Order: sequence, then structure tokens, then C-alpha cells
Amino acid sequence: MNNRIKVGITHGDVNGIGYEIILKTFEDSSMFEFCTPVLYGSPKIATYHRKAVDSQTNFNVVNNASEAVPDRLNLVNCCSEDVKVDLGIPTAESGNAAFNALERAVKEYREGMIDVLVTAPINKRSIHSDKFSFMGHTEYLESELGEGRRALMILMNSAMRVALVTVHEPISKVASLLSKDLVKEKITILHNSLKVDFGIEIPRIAVLALNPHASDDGLIGNEEETMIKPAIKECSADGIQCFGPFPADGFFGGGDYRMFDAVLAMYHDQGLIPLKTLDMECGVNFTAGLPVVRTSPDHGTAYDIAGKGVASEQSLRQAIFTAIDIYRSRRNEAEISANPLRKLFFDRRDDSDKLKQLDGDRE
Amino acid sequence: MNNRIKVGITHGDVNGIGYEIILKTFEDSSMFEFCTPVLYGSPKIATYHRKAVDSQTNFNVVNNASEAVPDRLNLVNCCSEDVKVDLGIPTAESGNAAFNALERAVKEYREGMIDVLVTAPINKRSIHSDKFSFMGHTEYLESELGEGRRALMILMNSAMRVALVTVHEPISKVASLLSKDLVKEKITILHNSLKVDFGIEIPRIAVLALNPHASDDGLIGNEEETMIKPAIKECSADGIQCFGPFPADGFFGGGDYRMFDAVLAMYHDQGLIPLKTLDMECGVNFTAGLPVVRTSPDHGTAYDIAGKGVASEQSLRQAIFTAIDIYRSRRNEAEISANPLRKLFFDRRDDSDKLKQLDGDRE
Repeated sequence: MNNRIKVGITHGDVNGIGYEIILKTFEDSSMFEFCTPVLYGSPKIATYHRKAVDSQTNFNVVNNASEAVPDRLNLVNCCSEDVKVDLGIPTAESGNAAFNALERAVKEYREGMIDVLVTAPINKRSIHSDKFSFMGHTEYLESELGEGRRALMILMNSAMRVALVTVHEPISKVASLLSKDLVKEKITILHNSLKVDFGIEIPRIAVLALNPHASDDGLIGNEEETMIKPAIKECSADGIQCFGPFPADGFFGGGDYRMFDAVLAMYHDQGLIPLKTLDMECGVNFTAGLPVVRTSPDHGTAYDIAGKGVASEQSLRQAIFTAIDIYRSRRNEAEISANPLRKLFFDRRDDSDKLKQLDGDRE
Repeated sequence: MNNRIKVGITHGDVNGIGYEIILKTFEDSSMFEFCTPVLYGSPKIATYHRKAVDSQTNFNVVNNASEAVPDRLNLVNCCSEDVKVDLGIPTAESGNAAFNALERAVKEYREGMIDVLVTAPINKRSIHSDKFSFMGHTEYLESELGEGRRALMILMNSAMRVALVTVHEPISKVASLLSKDLVKEKITILHNSLKVDFGIEIPRIAVLALNPHASDDGLIGNEEETMIKPAIKECSADGIQCFGPFPADGFFGGGDYRMFDAVLAMYHDQGLIPLKTLDMECGVNFTAGLPVVRTSPDHGTAYDIAGKGVASEQSLRQAIFTAIDIYRSRRNEAEISANPLRKLFFDRRDDSDKLKQLDGDRE
């Protein structure tokens, strides 16, 4: 029995680039040094895509993740034999296949067969059914594996980490969905995630304004005064290092994001435009706040290039590494916390990760 | 009499960095080869700032712009002697001084004494009075010099040109302010400006979506279907090369903006976040659509660094160059249009600027 982290990977929408990026990722055999992957998908569909993109990656079909072996791309069949692949088109079949894989992965996660979950992109419309009435993976996992906890979407790449207060909401609803309590909740989840998931002792969080010019002292909206500033104030009183609200354009333009461990944006495009503008290639989406560690690439099904062999696997590869890192970080934190005296020592001493690192090295 | 373009420059808020960037710009005497500047301000306040930032720039005080001489920074006094400078603080006095300069510049523009207008930053709150109840320069100039035409804010730097459908509006109101007609109007103004002001024969315009993922086919809002797509369709039918609506994050992340002459964003931060993220230093704001050519630097009063000598004049310098370029481009266009037969020849022949250029060189 080896102790590599078991990474459950769902195949996502089978008509998109999901299989291509999974196959490409595990063409590099060094991936198996970091993890034992378990793909929730279909041998038949996998074979179809393997041919389409001319990949050399092989699978090891298993009945469930407990049978997974090291150094192989293990594959749990979640689909019936008659699923038809229509490259580049969302279909009810492709949506259903995506859901079956996700459901199975969640089941096996619950049973302790996998350690972390990495999801390939789905199509929000085709996966929609009686069983799946969620906006996306995040909301589904919050419901299935959240244990009453609330999720926070964190996007990250080589430039920065961005968390979103509202995610897949129309611009017309963003302002009305905000509240002091919601901003406070998201700052708190983000703070805890930065500590536990990313091992940052005293994280610094930048909170963006909702309105242009941070409302120009109330000339352009007032959510900064009524919601965001009070939330920052209360979180600061709780000992969280959070700052703002910053006008978003100048904040990114001036490179201020470099001085913070994470940025909390009020809505989707406010956070994702600068993140992707700075680095499109390696973005990772992490669902913080839940007991399960779940990551995904930050791109979609990319139907327009499905089956053409040109999709980049970098984002999925980073998603796998990130899930592994976070899993390890949580395990470390749990070990440290298990001895209260030692924990006390750390808390008193420092806001430096070096001390901790040194101590870790001695063990 | 020389034929250099006369650039009227307003001093903006006198407690900010306006004077510093103006003084720094004209320390470089080569600026006088491109234009004859006329500063609407105050000799007394200018002298104060000159000492504060240790500048060597001298003024030539004139009664009005018609007396302006070449190779000097001409200065028209617009303020009473007792205006007090409070560096870094918005005051009623500083706002009033800003308004007096703007009002005078507009008056002299009307009288044909200056060719173009470049405005230093104001404070929206301190300039507010019975005489000035506008959100900013753009709205004031639309009212004073618009002759019934509608303005469009175009921001540009080394990376791209971005125009805004809504500008200084709270996020809560953005969606309700949009309409098919408004988007169409802005596309049309942008198209005409790219042709006449920037000399692009057949401009290509990218139109951004309002909602995340361009609404995911209606799952996240519907303004794309009800307003933006119809506007693009109707403008296309009018012969305008416009495309979209594009999901904003992927559009900038993928570098797609490089394939267009301008991008039309639905709201302030959607356009300004990527613009400033890509290039903070040299942004220029141009008020398109009006008979007057008006530009400004794309930053604010920067009270936090007022009088410290550290402000960068690059944005103002670019604003001056841009105003000159646009003035020349309009003059060229007017000359070409004056001879309908010749214009016909151009229209038939080409979508290439080279032909036009060649012909221009022969004259």
C-alpha cells in the first residue's frame, strides 16, 4: 500500500475537451509520483477521445477507487455502453454522462475511497436535470458534501488568488445580493482557507469596492459605506487582516494585488477579468470552505476545439497539484493543532512561515 | 503667426497633482514643437506648485489665448488672488478654482482661441456647485459644447482602446440603464470616431457581454439576447464591423482585444480593469462624439502624493499628443471630404490607409 494522495477526477462533459486534457496530463508519467489518479468516466468514451487526439495514455479499469493501483490512470466506469459522443455539441447524453461521473465520485469520496476531487468542465445547461438543478459544481458540492458549511470560489494562477462574493449572477442582481453579512462571511472563509489550505499564518486580504471609484464617497452608489466597510471593520475586530474597499481598476493597474495573499471581488468579471488578463494559461478554481478539497481548471468545455488535439492541459495539471497541496496543508494543520502546546508556541512566536518550516524540517 | 495647434489645458483641482504634471510635461522643451500650450489657471497657484515640486518651468502670462506665443507655456489667469492651496485636501476653494478655469477654457474654445482641450483631474465632489452639477468633465462638455451630440468615453493606452456604454454609474443601476438603442448609439459613435478621429478606414469593434459567461445562453441574465445582440445585428446591417457579445474575462485573458480597433464595455470597471491591468502608466481619456476634441489623463487628483514631486506626467503628455493627433486626423478627413470626387475615389479603391497616405504625401 503506497501513501500517495488519491485524486478523483470526473470526466465532465464528454463532448468537450475534458478527456483530452486528462489524457494529456497523464502522458507525463511523473504525475504518478504525486498522486494516484482515479478517473470517473467511461472506458468506451475514453477510448474514443484517445483516438481522436492520438494520445498514448492507457487506463486501468477498476470497479471502484479502492482498487486503484499506483502508477496507472485508474478508470471507474460510470456510464452505460450506449453513450454517444458528439464532439463540440452539448447534448442531453453528454450532460447525463457528466452527472453520473460526478455522482459516483461524490459517493466514493463519502466512502473514503478518494482524498480529493478534481472536476473537468461541464456544460451548465446540458447537465441540468431533475437530479441536478444547480448553477455548477460548487453549488452541488456545497449541497452534497458541505455538511452545512458555505462554499467560497477562489480562482488562482501565477499572479494572484481571487475569491468571489457573488459568482454566476447577472449584473442586474449583484448589488441586491450583497449584504454586510455576506461580505463578512466570505472574508472569514477566505481568511480561514488562506491559513489552513495555503499555510499562510497571517494572511492579508484586499477587499474590492463594488462601484466605480469605490463610489467616490457616495456619489456613485453606497454599498461601500453600508456593507463593505462595516464588514471589513467587523472582520478586522475579529483579528483578520483585511483592507479596502479598493477601486478595482486602480488596484489591479497599480499592481497592488501583489501586496496581498488574496483579493475578494464582489462579482464574477471584476475578479476574473484581471486574473485572466494577467495569466490565462494556468488558472485553477478551488472551492474553499467545504470539508472536501475540490479544484478544477478555470476554463469551460471549449466545444469549439473539442477533439482537435489543441487544448492545453496546463490548467488541469495545476488543478491537480493545487488539490494535492491543499490536502497536504490541511493534514499538516491538523497535525499541528493536535498538540495544543506546540500550537500555542507557534501562535505566540511569529508571523513568519520560516520558523514553522525550520521546525518542520527538524522533525 | 505659426500654425502649431493651440492646446488649452485646464489646471484641474489645485490641491492635487494637476500643476505638477503640467509643469513636468513642459520642462521638456520639445513639447513646444508640437503645440502652443495655453494653461487656464493662476500664476500665483502655479508659482506655489513650482516651488513645491522644484520645477524649472516658466510661464508667459497672457490676457487670453489669442495672445499666446510659441515656445512658451502661456498662462491665462482664471482665479482671484486669494485662492489658498491646501495640498492633498479637496476644498470648496480648490473646486471653485477648477471650475473657473474650465469655464474660461470653454469660453475661449467657443471664440476660436484654442483648437483642442486637455483637462487636468478634478475632484467630482469639490467642483460640485450651482454652476456645475455634472458627474464630470464629459457630461459638462456634452452640455456646453455638444451642440446636441452625445459623448462617448474612450480610454486608450499602449494596449487597446476601450469605450464605455455606461460610465460613472453604480453597479445596481448598470443593467437598467442599458437598452438596445443605447448600445447601438455607442457602437455608432465609436465607429465614427475610429474612422474620423483615428483614421481607421474600416474599424473592427468588439462588444463585450454584460453578464458572466455572456449569460450562458440566458442562464445568467438575458441582456445579451434582448439588447446587445440586436444592437450588434442592426449596426452590422448598417455596415459597421462589430462583433460579440464576448464574455469579458476570456476575451481579455485570451488576448482577443489585439484583433480589434476598439472594445465596447458595458460598464466602467469592465473596461478599465483590463485596460489598467495591461498598462497603468500612459492611459488617455478621450471624449468622442463631440465637436470639440477633449482629452485628459486617465488618473485622478492623487491627493495622497500631491506636492511631493513623485507624480508621473506620462499620462498627461499622452493626452496632449492624442488631442493633437485627433485634431489633425479630423482636419485631414475634412480636407478629403471637401472634394466629393476625390472622396469617391478613395471609397471605391481601398480599405488600406497606405493609399491614402501616399496620396497625402504627393500633395
